[in-house]
Amino acid sequence: MKRIYLDHNATTPLRPEARDAMIAAMDVCGNPSSVHAEGRAAKALIERARAQVASAFGADGADIVFTSGSTEGSALALSGRQLHGAAIEHDAVRAWIKEDLTVSEAGDVQVIAPEMSTLQLANSETGIVQTLPSGLAVTDATQAFGKLPVAFNWMNAQMALVSAHKLGGPKGVGAVVMRRGSDLAAQIKGGGQEMGRRSGTENVIGIVGFGAAAEAAMRDLANGVWEQIEEFRNILENALEAAVKSPIFVGKGRQRLPNTLCFAAPGWKGETQVMQMDLSGFAVSAGSACSSGKVRSSAVLTAMGFDEETASSAIRVSLGPRTTEEDVLRFAETWLEKEKKHRARAA
Amino acid sequence: MKRIYLDHNATTPLRPEARDAMIAAMDVCGNPSSVHAEGRAAKALIERARAQVASAFGADGADIVFTSGSTEGSALALSGRQLHGAAIEHDAVRAWIKEDLTVSEAGDVQVIAPEMSTLQLANSETGIVQTLPSGLAVTDATQAFGKLPVAFNWMNAQMALVSAHKLGGPKGVGAVVMRRGSDLAAQIKGGGQEMGRRSGTENVIGIVGFGAAAEAAMRDLANGVWEQIEEFRNILENALEAAVKSPIFVGKGRQRLPNTLCFAAPGWKGETQVMQMDLSGFAVSAGSACSSGKVRSSAVLTAMGFDEETASSAIRVSLGPRTTEEDVLRFAETWLEKEKKHRARAA
Repeated sequence: MKRIYLDHNATTPLRPEARDAMIAAMDVCGNPSSVHAEGRAAKALIERARAQVASAFGADGADIVFTSGSTEGSALALSGRQLHGAAIEHDAVRAWIKEDLTVSEAGDVQVIAPEMSTLQLANSETGIVQTLPSGLAVTDATQAFGKLPVAFNWMNAQMALVSAHKLGGPKGVGAVVMRRGSDLAAQIKGGGQEMGRRSGTENVIGIVGFGAAAEAAMRDLANGVWEQIEEFRNILENALEAAVKSPIFVGKGRQRLPNTLCFAAPGWKGETQVMQMDLSGFAVSAGSACSSGKVRSSAVLTAMGFDEETASSAIRVSLGPRTTEEDVLRFAETWLEKEKKHRARAA
Repeated sequence: MKRIYLDHNATTPLRPEARDAMIAAMDVCGNPSSVHAEGRAAKALIERARAQVASAFGADGADIVFTSGSTEGSALALSGRQLHGAAIEHDAVRAWIKEDLTVSEAGDVQVIAPEMSTLQLANSETGIVQTLPSGLAVTDATQAFGKLPVAFNWMNAQMALVSAHKLGGPKGVGAVVMRRGSDLAAQIKGGGQEMGRRSGTENVIGIVGFGAAAEAAMRDLANGVWEQIEEFRNILENALEAAVKSPIFVGKGRQRLPNTLCFAAPGWKGETQVMQMDLSGFAVSAGSACSSGKVRSSAVLTAMGFDEETASSAIRVSLGPRTTEEDVLRFAETWLEKEKKHRARAA
């Protein structure tokens, strides 16, 4: 049975462009810090990727500090700063903030002092997009980059976090994007790579994959691929809405990521839904994928004011560039069957 | 002209086994933290690599915490602990230690309180191998792993740092190896991966490459490849020694990495030698490769008591499994020619 992957907010399949670029980079053996020809060749690969990421993220002229992903990026951009933030942020951000910003039922975060706050651009679970206040210290753009047209230079945020594996690049690579001249205390010290902001021999193959994937992701956006994805997402939403008695669609009517559908079937645990759908050939998730092994109700939905039962019965379906209309229709059909059975058992 | 790469202590070409395993891993799309089939497949790749690294490092039963390399590993194992260490440690280690351990002229470090100290297993520049005292807190085994038979479980150190790209794996992957039950404060927090010790979606492709490379490196060691490498290194050393008036061979007669030759030609700057040899098709280095763009005399040699002129005129030649006798003889011939010219100009 062909499996249908609908968990693109957790991670994405590697884009062919990234794959090809990474395989080519495997033949470049030098250490980017070495001054000889082999070293310079490796360095050139990194600088090319840096330009690709900057261009795709609308961040020409900004500094791109490559990291091992947005979790390390969060530590780099946030640790020791005690910025204000909300409970709907990713755990990697929540680890470093004063969690005192309020979240409305619609999912909006109220920022009081932007220059002392962090705010995500889009939520991984609900897809809800925030309007960033001017002068924001840090925005976590991990979920938005590659799915929405985004330009760092128009955001008026001091720093942004991005990650390769959310847009078709490899896992384990990301970047902190910073306005030139931003101050940033290195967390990982040593050889002084990345202009002293992040030491360590660079993940050359991964960084090359990030650059290629970012470029390809922007091409998709320009070519209307994400409008198509949004159409399929809406087809799925409508199919479920028409058939289920009282489903709860989180973020409906809000500006959302075009690929994300978060909905709750109160009484039917999200984790059970995920496992049943997995056995039927579909990969979806309940809450964020990042909390290894932990099964708990969504902190995001709880922060938005949903009760425990609803929050623990939500699942997230997230589409990708290769998702087809047939995929989402098959998902709807299977899920509705199982939902019916669940109701019959519960009755 | 075929280039000859003799800078394996800076970084190594990717082993074919690592390359193949990484390309295969590119087809596994899941997030290792996801509970569905795609996620479990990614998780299985990581656990397989973890077992490969543990086995190759003689660390069965120990905890392997994957990092983005030994520089991050240093921050994880050392920051906030104020361990004692010596000036011959790598910059990534030096960033976190009290640099108060003395180094003898022969390169030996005197450790007073092992449980409060860190000591490298082998030096990247000189290749000199240290005898680790029992009960050591942390050892940087980055240069030794893959070049010497090493067994963590026989070392009696609490933790060890290792890196993939020094033994034929990709750059940007490493691990902290820890006796089970060791305490370690996470530096990168969030989703709780790596048993809460290092959060962040794992670099699956890179970790798979590390596992495959570690396994292949151990096979080389068992098959006598490194005895062959040592023979070529000695051929090179003897060829230079026979021809040059007063060369200084650092670490000669000491237990050294079998592939490493560090020698000084006082009066002829190491960086000049590196550039001239680069133009003639050879990749070697002066000092550690990790100090991007910085040109300065070797802190390692200075700590051993060499004067400024000698320390700044040293270069390191480091061989690898594919280095041939012809390679080292061609290097010797070219270097001796240039050394002669240098002396003629200087006279």
